[in-house]
Amino acid sequence: MPTMSEDNHLHYMQSALREAQEALEQGEVPVGCVIVHEGRIIGRGFNQREHLQDPTAHAEIIAITAAAATLGSWRLENAQLYVTLEPCPMCAGAIILSRIEAVFFGASDPKAGCCGTLMNLLQDTRFNHRTAVFGGLMKEECGNLLSSFFKSVRNKSTGQRDDNNSH
Amino acid sequence: MPTMSEDNHLHYMQSALREAQEALEQGEVPVGCVIVHEGRIIGRGFNQREHLQDPTAHAEIIAITAAAATLGSWRLENAQLYVTLEPCPMCAGAIILSRIEAVFFGASDPKAGCCGTLMNLLQDTRFNHRTAVFGGLMKEECGNLLSSFFKSVRNKSTGQRDDNNSH
Repeated sequence: MPTMSEDNHLHYMQSALREAQEALEQGEVPVGCVIVHEGRIIGRGFNQREHLQDPTAHAEIIAITAAAATLGSWRLENAQLYVTLEPCPMCAGAIILSRIEAVFFGASDPKAGCCGTLMNLLQDTRFNHRTAVFGGLMKEECGNLLSSFFKSVRNKSTGQRDDNNSH
Repeated sequence: MPTMSEDNHLHYMQSALREAQEALEQGEVPVGCVIVHEGRIIGRGFNQREHLQDPTAHAEIIAITAAAATLGSWRLENAQLYVTLEPCPMCAGAIILSRIEAVFFGASDPKAGCCGTLMNLLQDTRFNHRTAVFGGLMKEECGNLLSSFFKSVRNKSTGQRDDNNSH
């Protein structure tokens, strides 16, 4: 993995937070992601499940597809992924399949996090690729964005379906 | 889950096999998938990783996105998914997120299968949805298609990258 200063990691997580902010403005659970390759952001994404009505439209999946399009290859071997929330099984699986080198996430996800919380798919030696994982980067900022979103949903909610507490 | 005769299950798996055949004809690892809702196929997909150069372009992900577009909803709550190969972590995760009712798969996947082989994500009670899973439906036909593909890749391979043994 390329040596990067803490400042660089914060810079990329700030970019992921801007993506999450975009999701928030569109009424989506605020999760954002960027993918970096040789110091350049090659893919961005934010959660668009409600807007697209697509259960696969998580920030990471959108960013991975965008990054693969940028490189013209499904192999993201020397890329790093920054995401504001710990990836779920689907996104952890996509990270393994794309052979991403390292994942940096902000807030842990006690309900579906599969990069260290419920399990750690990225480090399971039975798969044909292992991705390094670093959690807790800017976790307060990432978590606060999610908390304020869910608080506002609960305040608005008057008998609506209780589906918004997962993205 | 709706009561269905064995004939119906075979019929839908035959449709998934036709999708896999399409993948084979395009030089992709032959995996195919259909999603059924109230007796109607609402989404189809076959593996297109190489053609699209997209690591997320597995048969199941394409079929799930198509099914959600058909219903106009990310919730595929009363749907059944038929796929020729046991889903990987990414696809198992997408199945959980889309709240699919039941998964029927053909061949088991000893390398990445997460619906009973390496683990069973679909029945993990920590997630907010459980999907019933039935493996081994037409496993010979599904497995033979994969075996013949990999045999032909090995015969053609003369120092190529050894990347084709995962889809």
